[in-house]
Amino acid sequence: MSAGPAPVDASPVDREVLLARAYLSRVAEPPAAALAAWVAEVGPVTAARRVRAGATDGPGALPPAVARETAARRDTDRAEADLTLLRARGGRLIVPEDPEWPAVALAGLGLVAGPDGGGGMEGAPAREGPAEPLALWARGPGRLDDAPRGRVALVGARAASEYGLWVARDWAADLADRGRTVVSGAALGIDGAAHRGALAVGGATVAVLACGIDRAYPPTHATLLDHIAHRGLVVTEYPPGSTPARHRFLVRNRLIAALTAGTVVVEAAARSGAMRTALVAGGLGRAVMVVPGPVTSALSLGCHELARRPEVSVVGRVAHVLEEVSPVGEDIATPPGTPTRPTDGLDPDALRVHEALSLHAARTAVRLAHEAGVDPRDLTTHLSELEARGLAESDGGRWRRRPG
Amino acid sequence: MSAGPAPVDASPVDREVLLARAYLSRVAEPPAAALAAWVAEVGPVTAARRVRAGATDGPGALPPAVARETAARRDTDRAEADLTLLRARGGRLIVPEDPEWPAVALAGLGLVAGPDGGGGMEGAPAREGPAEPLALWARGPGRLDDAPRGRVALVGARAASEYGLWVARDWAADLADRGRTVVSGAALGIDGAAHRGALAVGGATVAVLACGIDRAYPPTHATLLDHIAHRGLVVTEYPPGSTPARHRFLVRNRLIAALTAGTVVVEAAARSGAMRTALVAGGLGRAVMVVPGPVTSALSLGCHELARRPEVSVVGRVAHVLEEVSPVGEDIATPPGTPTRPTDGLDPDALRVHEALSLHAARTAVRLAHEAGVDPRDLTTHLSELEARGLAESDGGRWRRRPG
Repeated sequence: MSAGPAPVDASPVDREVLLARAYLSRVAEPPAAALAAWVAEVGPVTAARRVRAGATDGPGALPPAVARETAARRDTDRAEADLTLLRARGGRLIVPEDPEWPAVALAGLGLVAGPDGGGGMEGAPAREGPAEPLALWARGPGRLDDAPRGRVALVGARAASEYGLWVARDWAADLADRGRTVVSGAALGIDGAAHRGALAVGGATVAVLACGIDRAYPPTHATLLDHIAHRGLVVTEYPPGSTPARHRFLVRNRLIAALTAGTVVVEAAARSGAMRTALVAGGLGRAVMVVPGPVTSALSLGCHELARRPEVSVVGRVAHVLEEVSPVGEDIATPPGTPTRPTDGLDPDALRVHEALSLHAARTAVRLAHEAGVDPRDLTTHLSELEARGLAESDGGRWRRRPG
Repeated sequence: MSAGPAPVDASPVDREVLLARAYLSRVAEPPAAALAAWVAEVGPVTAARRVRAGATDGPGALPPAVARETAARRDTDRAEADLTLLRARGGRLIVPEDPEWPAVALAGLGLVAGPDGGGGMEGAPAREGPAEPLALWARGPGRLDDAPRGRVALVGARAASEYGLWVARDWAADLADRGRTVVSGAALGIDGAAHRGALAVGGATVAVLACGIDRAYPPTHATLLDHIAHRGLVVTEYPPGSTPARHRFLVRNRLIAALTAGTVVVEAAARSGAMRTALVAGGLGRAVMVVPGPVTSALSLGCHELARRPEVSVVGRVAHVLEEVSPVGEDIATPPGTPTRPTDGLDPDALRVHEALSLHAARTAVRLAHEAGVDPRDLTTHLSELEARGLAESDGGRWRRRPG
């Protein structure tokens, strides 16, 4: 290994671009709507140079909103060290210049208003808006470079019930078995159960963090995160060293929504992060699904409140999830196996004649017509049909029901 | 008591009309679409006389479809005896000529197609269609003479779970407490629990039977039916002596749907009578609601399948039911009490500054701006707001978080 800066050979992108994006990723707190829009306009290398210079007037001046977003951190440049650390951990920086960038999935974040209706108004950057990330710090063999279609988010309460944990594990395993990638936030409770369910069947799973890629949060999930990084993908828009903070979970949730074709909320109390992820997913045009649960459970309260919104679907089985996240007309859920009865398909009048028959006492045609209230002239037809199906037998001119 | 026929003084209607309706009620198996339409046209007294005569040609001939519907039973006239039996049990015959007739509620049955799309096509009477009843046999002080608005149906599985039984009892009691009449089918399981829940709080309840008013079905509900008849109303379109038969439950279910502003399915397996009632309710323009349950319960399978239909609402609380069965804009369910936090309403930047504060170590403004990624020039404003809310305190030019 040479003594110079380590090459970032895990990425096909020009090193100057990677360094610029790594710097820009730390210089503003996501989602940095003004910076993201401006970088898309002038390019990352120019943007990084001008943010570092920090001119507020003259030809190289920063747009005022960009200046505000970057004022506190523009002197902090750890890009070289960050990329070295990333490589040491077998990671890579995924940037828009890379074919792996999930452009289709993330495009919506640059376009739509946030859940609070915040947009990128001039002079009033909507920091809580859903701006596209400047880069994604990633570990693991999993790749993001397809459209969101094959990915499903399973999210929910940290303090989940045994019921919720069971559903998360079981459905994640089933989705992974059917070739879907299970995306979640690596949190305690539902998130962890979803990742574990996918891993248990050797399936694909992606953990989206609200902290740096070098942090194990929650600490008890350190081993789980290593498993995911070994077999799937751990990804974050926060640079190394970033600590988890409440607002970062909300910002992270928009990324989970964007990266997936649909979000399934397994359990959620009222006013939970999972409910917010679901609403952001709806705003991005993704499927929003809730798993029902007992109405007596506080952990299903959020799901049942969400279920009343017209854009939210109730999913009672994995087949429902597949139907929701697939193009219209594909993967239609077939009704659950319904019991068939030997009387299925009988004419309503024939059905009544069948009801009027007794297993024990043979009855006359007149009696049967009266009981059933059917025209006596039609009775022979009905009895013949019942006899042909093995549902009736004649006994000296009278009729008896046969066990089905 | 005189030896002659007992007067039916429980009804304000002319005795000849009552006798005609009592006869017609037995002479065809409900729903008798052709007979119902023809009685509405020529009147019950004329209709009864001509059905008794049974002419198939000449000026008094029956319409062919009416002849078919009445062929098997036209010689059976027990009207006098039926009315005497009814009166002996404290009952009354409710007919369209009576102000108590629930005309608004039942009107839809004469107009719309059945759940299978069956209509009253010439020569092919849709016997499974939703034709209006010819009369209602009733016991109890409860009355039906208002529009369906104040009535809610609670229906569901006979082999219900403890969860379903709890929901049915609890919600029925709550609905009754709020002045609603709980309508159900007196079956084992959910139906019985719903009636009991309403009775337990001294509320109004109506049982709609699929057999004669003189029958206790299921037998173990004989006492429950007496309680309902004592305090509410037991009602059926089947004449005395009619036995419960499978097709009669389906026909009865349409009456439950019609008499109520909405139907709540508490628990339902796939392909259950409760699911059918729900779909008929939808066809009549009534609210269709399902109570969610564990996805692991076969008894919630039908509810969750129904929940995927656009016309079906998920109800997680009684407030949701009231919203669904009330005119638009009334009885809107307020969101469940959500926990409030001292940081509610803070500007996103101020929230980030709050997150950057430590409870233990006082931090400089520069450090806070950097951590939070907010413009240092705005920091004083944010810290002042946090201090005013009691969320931050200064300590010799540095800042510390205060416990919320």
